[in-house]
Amino acid sequence: MAASETEADFAAWMGTTQARVEAALQRSLPGPQHVPARLHEAMRYATLEGGKRVRPLLTFAAGELAGADPARLDSVACAVEMIHAYSLVHDDLPCMDDDVLRRGKPTVHVEYDEATAMLVGDALQAQAFQLLSEPGLAGDPKLQLEMVKTLALAAGSRGMAGGQAIDLAATGKQLSQTELEFMHVRKTGALISAAVKMGALCAGSCPPALEQYAHRIGLAFQVVDDVLDSEASTATLGKTAGKDSAQGKPTYVSAMGAPRAKAFAEELRRGAQEALAPLGRRALRLQQLADFIVLRKF
Amino acid sequence: MAASETEADFAAWMGTTQARVEAALQRSLPGPQHVPARLHEAMRYATLEGGKRVRPLLTFAAGELAGADPARLDSVACAVEMIHAYSLVHDDLPCMDDDVLRRGKPTVHVEYDEATAMLVGDALQAQAFQLLSEPGLAGDPKLQLEMVKTLALAAGSRGMAGGQAIDLAATGKQLSQTELEFMHVRKTGALISAAVKMGALCAGSCPPALEQYAHRIGLAFQVVDDVLDSEASTATLGKTAGKDSAQGKPTYVSAMGAPRAKAFAEELRRGAQEALAPLGRRALRLQQLADFIVLRKF
Repeated sequence: MAASETEADFAAWMGTTQARVEAALQRSLPGPQHVPARLHEAMRYATLEGGKRVRPLLTFAAGELAGADPARLDSVACAVEMIHAYSLVHDDLPCMDDDVLRRGKPTVHVEYDEATAMLVGDALQAQAFQLLSEPGLAGDPKLQLEMVKTLALAAGSRGMAGGQAIDLAATGKQLSQTELEFMHVRKTGALISAAVKMGALCAGSCPPALEQYAHRIGLAFQVVDDVLDSEASTATLGKTAGKDSAQGKPTYVSAMGAPRAKAFAEELRRGAQEALAPLGRRALRLQQLADFIVLRKF
Repeated sequence: MAASETEADFAAWMGTTQARVEAALQRSLPGPQHVPARLHEAMRYATLEGGKRVRPLLTFAAGELAGADPARLDSVACAVEMIHAYSLVHDDLPCMDDDVLRRGKPTVHVEYDEATAMLVGDALQAQAFQLLSEPGLAGDPKLQLEMVKTLALAAGSRGMAGGQAIDLAATGKQLSQTELEFMHVRKTGALISAAVKMGALCAGSCPPALEQYAHRIGLAFQVVDDVLDSEASTATLGKTAGKDSAQGKPTYVSAMGAPRAKAFAEELRRGAQEALAPLGRRALRLQQLADFIVLRKF
């Protein structure tokens, strides 16, 4: 295939997968016909019709590579995305980042109220684990338990929530590149790695090459996020731009300057591609996602 | 045995089990030697040395009745207690009940800060599911998945978090007894039922008699809580007394008056004992716990 055909093909795959994940999320979230209606409505508001679904795309790409059943990937992708959505809702609260705009819409505590936003996050986390515990999800219940564990570790105090805590404590400080990496491997990287690993687990096991890929791409994602926060506009981001520097948060841009941060992201992208090399052509979607993540402009 | 001997025996069992659960929680929570130290310290502050451990006691009583391995019960009891502890931390936040005192100590957001309190709750929930996913916990991984599902349902939008949302929406309103029951079956009852069911699941299955017992005792617990909130002092409760009426929250006391609420609790206690009757002498600890929950004065 010529490069442009490959690109069109990737765009089509991405569109199809995003639509599939949206439909699966629609099905997996309790509807407002269930009491409490307002909470269920707010959980849907926080999760549906939003974002690029990078984590679910990674789950599907890793799962398809490994030959997983797509119906299983639906559940796993939804569970990962629910954890991600809950983290955004809690991060946006006044006691955290205090943000009013997310995915181009008012944040949950603005559209509803703070207490509802807190409960939305709490309930989305529980919903994610409920999804992973449905009988028969992975054929082998042991594998399913491994997924529960992978997601719990990624979300918890030594994963995402821990990364958040380090981030809060670092506000106003200048961190070294090593410290930044330590923070972001937890805050963003852990859930991205879990998305890849759990996709592969749907087919039985996760090859070490994928874990290495996931680690690099997770970090690259955050470096690019830092660059975009400092250079893109609020309109293109769909969330408030320039917040990091306004809040005195250490970023890759503040630590090494934008040009070196961009070069670092590029280095990580190449490292991620190299990790995939032994998997050959089967890893095409993951290669394309690495490009998509690092070269995205929105 | 004479009544006083039985009581002494129960008190000894309770003390031993509480100490055992405390030790298990100590082991199950990451220590402050792990980064982020402050978050781990706050998670321990929120969970250790507090409360009567009613839910873990129920898990152990149900598990011992069913013949479960005590080491398994440790993990399950800790998982349930972590969900309970997280819910208290989030409930106490200014955007929820805004309380400064819990278990006789300053609440987590007072002792630390609001953002930390939010992350403590988030991380405790993840930690609970991580505990339940440890390989080999229940022998049969299918049973373990059933525990994950039981706990996720109890914690989520159709369980505890949902009950909280209904509670928030009901502030300032007068609810009927049916509506109150609907709310409390979710807010308090769901996790208490899960504690009983998961204890029994450690030995293979949960008899319907136990589910009926758990439902009744869960509701009784809340009725007694409402009575105590209106009648006991802050010093004996270890949390701010009289908050429900000050905040205009509907309670069993506001719905039916204290005397009828007490009679209702007694009726539920008897119903719980009746549910246990087919299990005979094996259910002694659960019988004693029903008495303890309803007749407690602190």
